[in-house]
Amino acid sequence: MPEGLRAVEAAARTHDVSVDFTEFDFASAEYYEKHGEMLPSDWYDVLEGFDAILFGAVGWPDVVPDHVSLWGSLLQFRRGFDQYVNLRPCRLLPGVPSPLAGREPGDIDFVVVRENTEGEYSSIGGRMFEGTDREFVVQETVMTRVGVDRVVTYAFELAQRREAKHLTSATKSNGISISMPYWDERVAEIGARYPDVDRDQFHIDILAANFVLRPGHFDVVVASNLFGDILSDLGPACTGTIGVAPSANINPERAHPSLFEPVHGSAPDIAGKGVANPVGQIWSAAMMLEHLGHAAAGQSILDSIESVLAERSADVVTPDLGGAGTTTSLGAAITERI
Amino acid sequence: MPEGLRAVEAAARTHDVSVDFTEFDFASAEYYEKHGEMLPSDWYDVLEGFDAILFGAVGWPDVVPDHVSLWGSLLQFRRGFDQYVNLRPCRLLPGVPSPLAGREPGDIDFVVVRENTEGEYSSIGGRMFEGTDREFVVQETVMTRVGVDRVVTYAFELAQRREAKHLTSATKSNGISISMPYWDERVAEIGARYPDVDRDQFHIDILAANFVLRPGHFDVVVASNLFGDILSDLGPACTGTIGVAPSANINPERAHPSLFEPVHGSAPDIAGKGVANPVGQIWSAAMMLEHLGHAAAGQSILDSIESVLAERSADVVTPDLGGAGTTTSLGAAITERI
Ligand SMILES: CC(C)[C@H](C(=O)O)[C@@H](O)C(=O)O
Ligand SMILES: CC(C)[C@H](C(=O)O)[C@@H](O)C(=O)O
Repeated sequence: MPEGLRAVEAAARTHDVSVDFTEFDFASAEYYEKHGEMLPSDWYDVLEGFDAILFGAVGWPDVVPDHVSLWGSLLQFRRGFDQYVNLRPCRLLPGVPSPLAGREPGDIDFVVVRENTEGEYSSIGGRMFEGTDREFVVQETVMTRVGVDRVVTYAFELAQRREAKHLTSATKSNGISISMPYWDERVAEIGARYPDVDRDQFHIDILAANFVLRPGHFDVVVASNLFGDILSDLGPACTGTIGVAPSANINPERAHPSLFEPVHGSAPDIAGKGVANPVGQIWSAAMMLEHLGHAAAGQSILDSIESVLAERSADVVTPDLGGAGTTTSLGAAITERI
Repeated sequence: MPEGLRAVEAAARTHDVSVDFTEFDFASAEYYEKHGEMLPSDWYDVLEGFDAILFGAVGWPDVVPDHVSLWGSLLQFRRGFDQYVNLRPCRLLPGVPSPLAGREPGDIDFVVVRENTEGEYSSIGGRMFEGTDREFVVQETVMTRVGVDRVVTYAFELAQRREAKHLTSATKSNGISISMPYWDERVAEIGARYPDVDRDQFHIDILAANFVLRPGHFDVVVASNLFGDILSDLGPACTGTIGVAPSANINPERAHPSLFEPVHGSAPDIAGKGVANPVGQIWSAAMMLEHLGHAAAGQSILDSIESVLAERSADVVTPDLGGAGTTTSLGAAITERI
């Protein structure tokens, strides 16, 4: 997070943008330890007035179970602030070796548009016959016309602005027989309004396989909450490391603050060691500037990231990129170059 | 399918096993075109007396929507015959180039144990406010103690018999907050009975990423119906092509027939061209022989597959393996060598 803030400050300075940060200590496991909950009860009012939220990675299972920490923070924000688009670019950057054989920078460049407020992430369901052999749980997937249509429309609009003008829909209507056929239906209906956008769809199983087998096929991939979650970790893995992957949880109408966070989790195994790759956080900050109307400032951060990574200097880049650098050395190199 | 049958016959001959095949034309799109449904009403009684079902790939979306063809056939069999374990080995074979950089045969060798009767593949749910802006659908995920415990137990037993004795559980309890925490709870409770099995768990997003980033980490991966579906297409993709991947839908108690089928779909784009890779079907037939107690006969098929693929003879292997061969040339080469 400190590296993300420094990058924003540098970009703001060079592009004459004024930024004003307020730090909050909630939504962390430390806060939970002290207060028994992740957020203060007035979190909504406290945050609603801000333009954007730059968010770190959450989760520390030794202290608080993951579903408690996440449903108590990130997932509250996404739903509370109606951040219904989760935008996750996957790009093979120069200097980041891909685990896929023979792929070069430029070969992989797509964006996952993930539905971010409903779908498989529902809070409806429960448990019955507890503690007996008849015990079972149900959990409902909920897809609304409003929810599906707006994110699918966003994805088509985005595809239309891109060079390839190609949209892929992630489905599983052969197996998930009620919700996913509905998803397909809405995609087809909305797609008919964008005749200049090439459209295809894959079941999620073979779609995941194709991220590995022919990642160059994809341009914009629109997906439900769960499928988008999976694809946006898998995509970055194909581009080398999820340590560099950014994400933007957007309320496109800007009626509420949007939230920018790295795709990676909190990685408790390396917490405090100072070796976490800061690029995911920094790139997320660049997306924040772009969302706030400062595209040039955002782009300057992205350019710096690309130029520093391309050099692959061993004492600058972090261990996940094959270097011996630290969070600070990599962050500082990027900030200096902005 | 003809190649699968020929391989079984050859293995049966050389191992003195008697096999008796009956062919049925139902569960196909052609049957659907004629009868308006995928199966005759007495399918259960017709099939229940058999030891095993060797099944082809189903689906022809031009004629019948996928959810109709699959819920009308394969998914009926899995549930009707209580084939609660779906076993899907992922192995990097000699002669099959992996899309992952630097991976050699032997580097990837794990098996996905997929729950096969419940979970996300439920038939409960529906649609409301149809055709209006308030329209929505719900679909329930159902996990029962019986359903989860038996497949997880099967997976631990399997892990215990393998050299690495390592079980990974696929979860998403940080986001899917009712069903997946229950899954974790059952895995932990059952796992406690297998102290000699190393156990870990990953959320499905990062698990998918790790199939690409460090596939050698995995030995037995146990997963819900949907997660198992995704992982068992992604795993084979990492080992080169899903064209070679087999699967066994097993009722371990042998109270009902088990079903053996390739992981790949019906691939309408190459249907009738004679270039489909027959290995997935042939390997599935080998798993069938093993399940029926003829392990040596099954192994002889697998050995032939490995030896033929290792030669990579361009006029034998199919286009997906970089050859110019056909379904028949590859099938015949395998059968001859048994
Ligand atoms: C065809 C489809 C319903 C099926 C499934 O999702 O189970 C297939 O993908 C599989 O993996 O066997
Ligand atoms: C932490 C978790 C709840 C979250 C999600 O599943 O949405 C994360 O994986 C993500 O992708 O932002």
